[in-house]
Amino acid sequence: MLEFAQFGAGRIGDIHASNLAASNDARLRYIVDVNAAAARKIAAATGARVVDERTALGDPRVGAVLIASSTDTHACLAMAAARAGKAIFCEKPIDLSLAKVDACLRVVKRAHVPMLVGFNRRFDPNFRELKSRIERGAIGKVELVQITSRDPGLPPLGYLKVAGGLFRDMTIHDFDMARWLLGEEPVEVFARGAVLVDPVVKRVGDVDTAAVTLRTASGKIAVITNSRRASYGYDQRIEVHGSMGCLSAGNRTENTVQQADGRGVAGAKPLHFFLERYADAYRAELAAFVQALRNRKKMPVGPEDGRQALVLAEAALKSMKSGRAVRV
Amino acid sequence: MLEFAQFGAGRIGDIHASNLAASNDARLRYIVDVNAAAARKIAAATGARVVDERTALGDPRVGAVLIASSTDTHACLAMAAARAGKAIFCEKPIDLSLAKVDACLRVVKRAHVPMLVGFNRRFDPNFRELKSRIERGAIGKVELVQITSRDPGLPPLGYLKVAGGLFRDMTIHDFDMARWLLGEEPVEVFARGAVLVDPVVKRVGDVDTAAVTLRTASGKIAVITNSRRASYGYDQRIEVHGSMGCLSAGNRTENTVQQADGRGVAGAKPLHFFLERYADAYRAELAAFVQALRNRKKMPVGPEDGRQALVLAEAALKSMKSGRAVRV
Amino acid sequence: MLEFAQFGAGRIGDIHASNLAASNDARLRYIVDVNAAAARKIAAATGARVVDERTALGDPRVGAVLIASSTDTHACLAMAAARAGKAIFCEKPIDLSLAKVDACLRVVKRAHVPMLVGFNRRFDPNFRELKSRIERGAIGKVELVQITSRDPGLPPLGYLKVAGGLFRDMTIHDFDMARWLLGEEPVEVFARGAVLVDPVVKRVGDVDTAAVTLRTASGKIAVITNSRRASYGYDQRIEVHGSMGCLSAGNRTENTVQQADGRGVAGAKPLHFFLERYADAYRAELAAFVQALRNRKKMPVGPEDGRQALVLAEAALKSMKSGRAVRV
Amino acid sequence: MLEFAQFGAGRIGDIHASNLAASNDARLRYIVDVNAAAARKIAAATGARVVDERTALGDPRVGAVLIASSTDTHACLAMAAARAGKAIFCEKPIDLSLAKVDACLRVVKRAHVPMLVGFNRRFDPNFRELKSRIERGAIGKVELVQITSRDPGLPPLGYLKVAGGLFRDMTIHDFDMARWLLGEEPVEVFARGAVLVDPVVKRVGDVDTAAVTLRTASGKIAVITNSRRASYGYDQRIEVHGSMGCLSAGNRTENTVQQADGRGVAGAKPLHFFLERYADAYRAELAAFVQALRNRKKMPVGPEDGRQALVLAEAALKSMKSGRAVRV
Repeated sequence: MLEFAQFGAGRIGDIHASNLAASNDARLRYIVDVNAAAARKIAAATGARVVDERTALGDPRVGAVLIASSTDTHACLAMAAARAGKAIFCEKPIDLSLAKVDACLRVVKRAHVPMLVGFNRRFDPNFRELKSRIERGAIGKVELVQITSRDPGLPPLGYLKVAGGLFRDMTIHDFDMARWLLGEEPVEVFARGAVLVDPVVKRVGDVDTAAVTLRTASGKIAVITNSRRASYGYDQRIEVHGSMGCLSAGNRTENTVQQADGRGVAGAKPLHFFLERYADAYRAELAAFVQALRNRKKMPVGPEDGRQALVLAEAALKSMKSGRAVRV
Repeated sequence: MLEFAQFGAGRIGDIHASNLAASNDARLRYIVDVNAAAARKIAAATGARVVDERTALGDPRVGAVLIASSTDTHACLAMAAARAGKAIFCEKPIDLSLAKVDACLRVVKRAHVPMLVGFNRRFDPNFRELKSRIERGAIGKVELVQITSRDPGLPPLGYLKVAGGLFRDMTIHDFDMARWLLGEEPVEVFARGAVLVDPVVKRVGDVDTAAVTLRTASGKIAVITNSRRASYGYDQRIEVHGSMGCLSAGNRTENTVQQADGRGVAGAKPLHFFLERYADAYRAELAAFVQALRNRKKMPVGPEDGRQALVLAEAALKSMKSGRAVRV
Repeated sequence: MLEFAQFGAGRIGDIHASNLAASNDARLRYIVDVNAAAARKIAAATGARVVDERTALGDPRVGAVLIASSTDTHACLAMAAARAGKAIFCEKPIDLSLAKVDACLRVVKRAHVPMLVGFNRRFDPNFRELKSRIERGAIGKVELVQITSRDPGLPPLGYLKVAGGLFRDMTIHDFDMARWLLGEEPVEVFARGAVLVDPVVKRVGDVDTAAVTLRTASGKIAVITNSRRASYGYDQRIEVHGSMGCLSAGNRTENTVQQADGRGVAGAKPLHFFLERYADAYRAELAAFVQALRNRKKMPVGPEDGRQALVLAEAALKSMKSGRAVRV
Repeated sequence: MLEFAQFGAGRIGDIHASNLAASNDARLRYIVDVNAAAARKIAAATGARVVDERTALGDPRVGAVLIASSTDTHACLAMAAARAGKAIFCEKPIDLSLAKVDACLRVVKRAHVPMLVGFNRRFDPNFRELKSRIERGAIGKVELVQITSRDPGLPPLGYLKVAGGLFRDMTIHDFDMARWLLGEEPVEVFARGAVLVDPVVKRVGDVDTAAVTLRTASGKIAVITNSRRASYGYDQRIEVHGSMGCLSAGNRTENTVQQADGRGVAGAKPLHFFLERYADAYRAELAAFVQALRNRKKMPVGPEDGRQALVLAEAALKSMKSGRAVRV
């Protein structure tokens, strides 16, 4: 039974804590959060104890930490955990600054602790099936990846101000998916963005709509489109075109009911947002982390993956400003 | 170039005349109808001449007749055509009375003229593909056929009065499809009907909603459901379950546009009615008739098929009255 | 916190025990099973204690029993639980004999204990959405219900021998769905069955393929088709046609991946069987039971519903033998 | 009855000639082609006469010319037709050189003859429905257009050599669709291309796979992906995301048959290529041309549209070479 200390008792922390509580292989021993009420709530639901960072990291029974606190604390906590010899499950992104990411990665590497970066989509059963078919050669050589990724609505202004911009906050998931599906590193990024959803986004120096083109050394192309708003729910679709066919993974809908009447044939919306859409993915992600630790296998998404997605985000930002394709 | 005389210049006559006009292998020489205006309209559009029955059947250049007049004239015209040695394309049903059908079939048989009965659905490209896959063994042995067949709306009362009732007028198509897809003759019919769409249907002694169960000697089952109304258009779907899988053919829609918004994801309605849905089928049916004549092959749907569907309709009627399964 | 004693530690017992363990409102105190190993396994996973019936029913802290043992023990256990004053969650069917069901219902009624009969499909989120739209008037007056219900494969012969036949074992779920969706009691049943899947079924006096027609007093019709085999998985679909439109609920698929290549466009199979397809339904069913108890509301599926479905099953059996529609 | 002279008796000429022959409002009087056999074949099928250019353009009964000859002759023929005072239906592109297009447009403008450029997709019933919903405000303000456009397979090398490259030959259709659906002129083009389908493409200096990003002055974005190969048929899909929802138009499939078996649920491929997919569009396009002439209305796709799409193609080419977004 692997024992966890979890940092962060917010929305995403809640999911991980529940999954830990339901796991047969793991147990949540400690929960740490500056928001004591939130921490207590999770403690009550899971049987964990509310403690401070020092206690959590100082307990030798704790084998792993789960970092689901605010983004600006990820790197520090990961380094502290690494120094304490704990295995690390860290929510994405590791940090918004590449320099800080690199510093963190050095510490983690030196400490020889395993680290998983929480790109949850890699664990979505639909995308996994798609990926495993690519690997089995179902569509031959991959040529073109198309990722449609749209949130149901604009996050609060407060969040936008600290999120690091669309590319680092939202597209970062898509950069990771593109790398994973292309099976090759992108060497070039071109990005275009616009403020179409809400003028407030402009005021914080961000964009709310974007299109990004990635290219690998062998000429494979990935196209990502993003928007902070999709009135019909969370739009998360992928198409991979290969030399022998195309694989696509569509949205999961709220239900399978179809209504046919004088206006047409109408079905349900996609599942509302990431909590619903990726519920299975979060479970599978945690299980994969525990499994990899137990079997002393390589983490399925490592710190280098977290770094590389950020590199692409920075290149996208640079491209958006310069109007040029940026080499990475 | 096969020359036709066509009887009937109504809605269905219009389709056949257009298809004859567009055919490279056939030509419409004569059009006959008591409604002179309708006949003249078709003549103008196709280059045919408006004549009377005697002229049409008396001309030795006419190789085939196409009977698309009112149902009560089908048998008489078919017999006259047979006696004149013409090949016969006869809209369904041959007649509403089995006795009259039998009389007609005797004359046709004696005259050794080929006759096709217009069960247009057998020529629908979707149903043909489904049938050909059954024949290629794609789903193993057929076990269960489910036919959903609903008209967009109640026909005029005048039509209902002379149509011979739901089973002879509407279900007759489904009886033919069931026979075709089961690949065995039904030996038993059970039917239930109700007046749910409009009370006026009760006044003419008919039903507007029905469910029929057919059974073959080897135990295969077909289930047909009918309604005179489907507010979303013409509902024409088939499922065939076999020992190794299931084949289904769905509706063709008006277009492929999908609209996703706050209410869900909505697509187009099925094509409105038989003129739209079976446009391809009517063309293919005529081509198959001409082809069979030219190659001296067996007609793909013969007079016996027309008779057998009527036998099932009569059994359904008897079952609805008695509450028992009726042997045929 | 409602405390449960559960009878039965088999496949279905496993599901209920897991759901109890995960519930915030309920707790599994006792598990009872003649198979001690199975009981111990559930005890280990949930923290329940393995005890005998007497202990379980004798403990006043136990507020409710969950009966998931073999069918022939349901009625006896339900009666014992009723006499002990416990609320009852009883897997379907209450019993295969109507007489025994009636005896059980009398005891339950006299004891004034609430009882839910486990027709899990009523709690499937897709069917619930469909039902709630009917209730909101989305398709006007219900006219025709079509239920397609096929198991992935024939159960073991041992099971078939004691299951009470297709209608009592499998169609019973569909009878319940038909009653629920029609919103009226069926007054007539017609059934046809055949042995098409495996001749062994004939030896145990059962059928493996069936079609049933139900009719209500006002003329509404329901058509059910069943097979013990669907090579593509568990086929659970419903269509409800009303005066203003049609509602349908399709299968949930294993994933959303589509593969387009030279052979066509292929998607995933439906979820394999009831454990997968109705996982959400089982959870919701238990929650509804607990909720109804807590709020002293009427059970959403009561013992009369269990009885009525059995009445229809018996009528179907009689109809299959006689070839007549049977009044109920 | 509008009389046509048609230039070009190849594959696309064949379609137009058939549509002219079937039209009630138009008639094909002359067919002109250097390939006499091809011209004679069309003449035989339609009743047209095979003549030379001078005769065709010199006959005052000819009101319109249809230019479906090889691309390098379009501009010359259009100018000759303009000088002869004929209305012009010209297949796309007008020419591969912008200078020649401009010269042609000047002549056409001076002659005051109406000219339609054959962007057939604008007349596809699915895309028209999508466009008309945008215009009715169904999805609010357009923000992002995604066009997937893939041919079933690489054209012959001979064609590739003279086609002017992927952007001028294939993407040009998508540029036109993007302009039409954005409702604003793109002001910037970024393009990436690669040779992934067949190395032979590299030898003729072209690419076979591409991704293009367009941006309008107000920040709207369009993303186009192209490939010369889609093993599953002709892939022609469009998505338009707006402030209130999303409209998409999918592929038309060969049939509606679905096969469910142990491997999954498989449906038909998209229609094979443009002749099948856009058969309705070609008919509607011709009808729109005739209609606009008759009613003296503006052509639905004018010569400026032909020019503008070429401008975007040239910008794409420049961007692909420079790695920069190119202003237009």
